[in-house]
Amino acid sequence: MENESKKYLEFIKSRRSIRNFIHSKIQRDTILQILECGQFSPSGKNNQPWRVNIVIHPTVKRMLGDLTMSGNIIESAYLNFVIFLDLEKVYDRVKDLQSIGAFMENILLGIHAMNLGGVWIGEILKNKEQVNEIFRLNTGKYELMGVIAVGEIDEEIIKLKGESPRERRPLDDFIDWY
Amino acid sequence: MENESKKYLEFIKSRRSIRNFIHSKIQRDTILQILECGQFSPSGKNNQPWRVNIVIHPTVKRMLGDLTMSGNIIESAYLNFVIFLDLEKVYDRVKDLQSIGAFMENILLGIHAMNLGGVWIGEILKNKEQVNEIFRLNTGKYELMGVIAVGEIDEEIIKLKGESPRERRPLDDFIDWY
Repeated sequence: MENESKKYLEFIKSRRSIRNFIHSKIQRDTILQILECGQFSPSGKNNQPWRVNIVIHPTVKRMLGDLTMSGNIIESAYLNFVIFLDLEKVYDRVKDLQSIGAFMENILLGIHAMNLGGVWIGEILKNKEQVNEIFRLNTGKYELMGVIAVGEIDEEIIKLKGESPRERRPLDDFIDWY
Repeated sequence: MENESKKYLEFIKSRRSIRNFIHSKIQRDTILQILECGQFSPSGKNNQPWRVNIVIHPTVKRMLGDLTMSGNIIESAYLNFVIFLDLEKVYDRVKDLQSIGAFMENILLGIHAMNLGGVWIGEILKNKEQVNEIFRLNTGKYELMGVIAVGEIDEEIIKLKGESPRERRPLDDFIDWY
């Protein structure tokens, strides 16, 4: 296998959820570079049914944090991407939700590319209407899909916690040949 | 920005749907490397609710191809990943469908890492029950999520067709700062 291929595979496989951050500014240009990864993700009929609110202001982070058990992660992250499905662009529920998943994964990989840490927070969906209220977004126009918290990785804390990566099902458990 | 970061961002953003393939064998090890990218994608509660049938046999490809307008792509690809949601592992419809989207994107990026071409085929979902029949899979246990056709890229045809990459919404169209 080519060395380049090996590097890219390793890059994809080495992404991990990061929940411990150092408070350190992330430049606007870095944020845009990360979002461009989402911009180039695939979607059915190329409908690109996403919207992202980039939350940096501490007050807005606190309001979001109050709506989830992961509030401390949201508040300690330098920024949060709050991701919505644009209900005026949807065409097929299954495919649109899959597109959002691909979009969020591309953003997580963009964060990883920038040597930053990120984590996908889905539990906040239980309070999706209240999230819309924070931004005064009509629930008929935008549906909350998840939050990605982003920050500089606190390597020391992560080493101290000594967490091992979450277990993965072996390939043989979910593949079959035809 | 570091050079490495730039390379990885460019890698993510340069993935494109490829629909023209040269018939050339893809090694078993390459296929497994690609699937490992999916294996490491994130899922809610780490439930990893996926199943993949790897289709190489021409008869099975023909049977699949008959169920979609993209039949010629499925038949000309060396292999197809037929991806299902494992209904015994699901816990939340929205989050499970997003996880499958992230899983499929990681596989598409794995294909890209190996310098191969791939395309996500969703239109076949209209015949999802018939796809289950081909594999004798119980529709109560597995739900078709999509097909990814994979093959060596036919660069010449693609150059001849002169297709430009599909248009993307500008960032400012879908982001907002808070």
